[in-house]
Amino acid sequence: MAQGLDATAAWTLSIDDIERIATGATLLGAGGGGDPYISLLAARQMYEAGGRKATVISLDQLADDALVLCVAGFGAPTVMKERLFEPAHVLHALRALETHIGQKADALIAAEMGGGNALYPVLAAAECGLPIVDGDGMGRAFPELQMTSFSIGGVAAAPFAMTDEHLNTVICNAKPDKRAEAFARITCMEMGLSSSLAAYPMTGEAAKRVVIRDTMTLSLKLGQIISAARQAASPIDHLVNAIRTEAPTSEAVRLFDGKVVDVYRSTERGFAVGWFELAPVSSNGSGARIEFQNEYLALTVDQRPRALAPDLICVVDAETAEPVPTPDVRFGQRLSVLGLACDQTFKTEHALSVVGPRAFGLHYDYKPLAELSRAK
Amino acid sequence: MAQGLDATAAWTLSIDDIERIATGATLLGAGGGGDPYISLLAARQMYEAGGRKATVISLDQLADDALVLCVAGFGAPTVMKERLFEPAHVLHALRALETHIGQKADALIAAEMGGGNALYPVLAAAECGLPIVDGDGMGRAFPELQMTSFSIGGVAAAPFAMTDEHLNTVICNAKPDKRAEAFARITCMEMGLSSSLAAYPMTGEAAKRVVIRDTMTLSLKLGQIISAARQAASPIDHLVNAIRTEAPTSEAVRLFDGKVVDVYRSTERGFAVGWFELAPVSSNGSGARIEFQNEYLALTVDQRPRALAPDLICVVDAETAEPVPTPDVRFGQRLSVLGLACDQTFKTEHALSVVGPRAFGLHYDYKPLAELSRAK
Repeated sequence: MAQGLDATAAWTLSIDDIERIATGATLLGAGGGGDPYISLLAARQMYEAGGRKATVISLDQLADDALVLCVAGFGAPTVMKERLFEPAHVLHALRALETHIGQKADALIAAEMGGGNALYPVLAAAECGLPIVDGDGMGRAFPELQMTSFSIGGVAAAPFAMTDEHLNTVICNAKPDKRAEAFARITCMEMGLSSSLAAYPMTGEAAKRVVIRDTMTLSLKLGQIISAARQAASPIDHLVNAIRTEAPTSEAVRLFDGKVVDVYRSTERGFAVGWFELAPVSSNGSGARIEFQNEYLALTVDQRPRALAPDLICVVDAETAEPVPTPDVRFGQRLSVLGLACDQTFKTEHALSVVGPRAFGLHYDYKPLAELSRAK
Repeated sequence: MAQGLDATAAWTLSIDDIERIATGATLLGAGGGGDPYISLLAARQMYEAGGRKATVISLDQLADDALVLCVAGFGAPTVMKERLFEPAHVLHALRALETHIGQKADALIAAEMGGGNALYPVLAAAECGLPIVDGDGMGRAFPELQMTSFSIGGVAAAPFAMTDEHLNTVICNAKPDKRAEAFARITCMEMGLSSSLAAYPMTGEAAKRVVIRDTMTLSLKLGQIISAARQAASPIDHLVNAIRTEAPTSEAVRLFDGKVVDVYRSTERGFAVGWFELAPVSSNGSGARIEFQNEYLALTVDQRPRALAPDLICVVDAETAEPVPTPDVRFGQRLSVLGLACDQTFKTEHALSVVGPRAFGLHYDYKPLAELSRAK
């Protein structure tokens, strides 16, 4: 255990916990955050070898002067599914950032609680013997560096370090975070749209102000719920009801059930962008359309928005209740679309200018999920 | 004077020397290297303020364990002519690189002996009280990081640091130099095609192996020759003859005299690329065409090459003998095209694969200037 931490309440993850977190975080990823499969394989290998185990601490266990660093895979999820990465890459980025700022990290944290990017930091932390903080900077996944509660709360992404699989390294110090994102994006494009990132150096004191708390615990709970839903007679009903009653998240709404009848995807400006359309399964009613940029950003029915970023648009398999990330949407799939309310951090005017629909080039003003989903 | 240097033969530049070097290096720049005008203004200001003066040392004065760093403006000459930069920017890049490698530079050196990129390091060195080494990595200008005698001799460009005018900084460690160039290029594109670079950290021992020697002395001599040619009855004849007889460069050939009848330029992939055509002034004979990518790369007459990179294709004003860089070529100008032989470093098979015509996408095999210019 590193200095500056209260170890009394550290929580050691079992391999079952890790599997549940992977599933739950893939739901929270709202289509993005990357595939957790490779991290899951690496975790199984680590646990079978009997080596290090991943240790989670709560925000309150961080000393105010502890150094917390954020690690993540950075790129386009479609590409990162094919170009594998491993803890050694992110450790290289982490060491480069530590050397640059002249201080060792006391704990790591996830930038986003989404699929691979929830697990990857857990593994990296275990690999280098550091605890991982229970929380993240989004409570979901978003595609860009300025779109974190860290950034919105005043913790800069820079200096940050990025590494590719050849261990080419870029350390960047650019402000504000939208410029940092621009440098990170072109670097990740040059790295082939799959890179490892260490960023957002912050003190324990700052972390307590800006981190969205307990989202790993939430992912674990959601993973358990999805696992139970699989066995239920009506998986989606079970899922929605259980999220409402058992998970500490404020809202869950079943928005649409349908069959994929069209998918368009493209890799543009360093992102996996596109849309897909769902025809209703049970009626001759209107179809739905979902736009994405790494993550699902807008659900519209009859060209009227029913859910908009920053609220979470989560797509699950209609039969298994398993979350379906954007790269996995295929023609003919039967899917259900759920809405989960985003963290309150993202509902201020300033935050909505960074993570609201117009920040993604969509021509809608944000309205809360509860309002849009009730509108007829 | 920094440690590790023999100061006995240091040479202090007068403002006249600096003006001559600017002119001579613009000729050696073969169209590129950037406009020296801003650096010249800054040098005049520095000298009028009575502050630091620029000090040149020869390669042999470097201790073997001295740290030599290379500084340069990096971008597209067309843009760098408009977006001004100043010593503070390159000092920021220099300090970032020094901090990254944990060692202070003992001397600076130019990457290329071309226009602004010959003077900019002189000014930066004076600004931070370091001597500048008499030599460079090209004996001319080239557009890419792997195209130096440093790189060809085994001194890597990375780690390197880049800064823009907002002092956003990128430190990159990528190998080989062609990959380092790719990262530097996208970074400079994100910086708006005008950036300051500190690169190629090398020991004095390595410098003695890979530096093209005494090219600042050569620039000074060429500047003096151009200054005299301006006054001569036949400026171009004077220029060519004086280079042949007075300058320590092996060959100078007058290749073509003509009037610009067409110019095409474009900013592509982070470079100023294009071509122009010359109609002969004195006859109804064939016209000539010059291709460029930051620098002049090929002169053809009747589609037959008369001079090819890495040999220097130098374009001068027919009346003043002043060198004309690629961004300054305009319809209607009367120009003379000279060829100067490149340094022997660039004539090996390996070097030609890096700086020969095909490395720039031209469909010619390199032949030496002497051979091509004699061919009828």
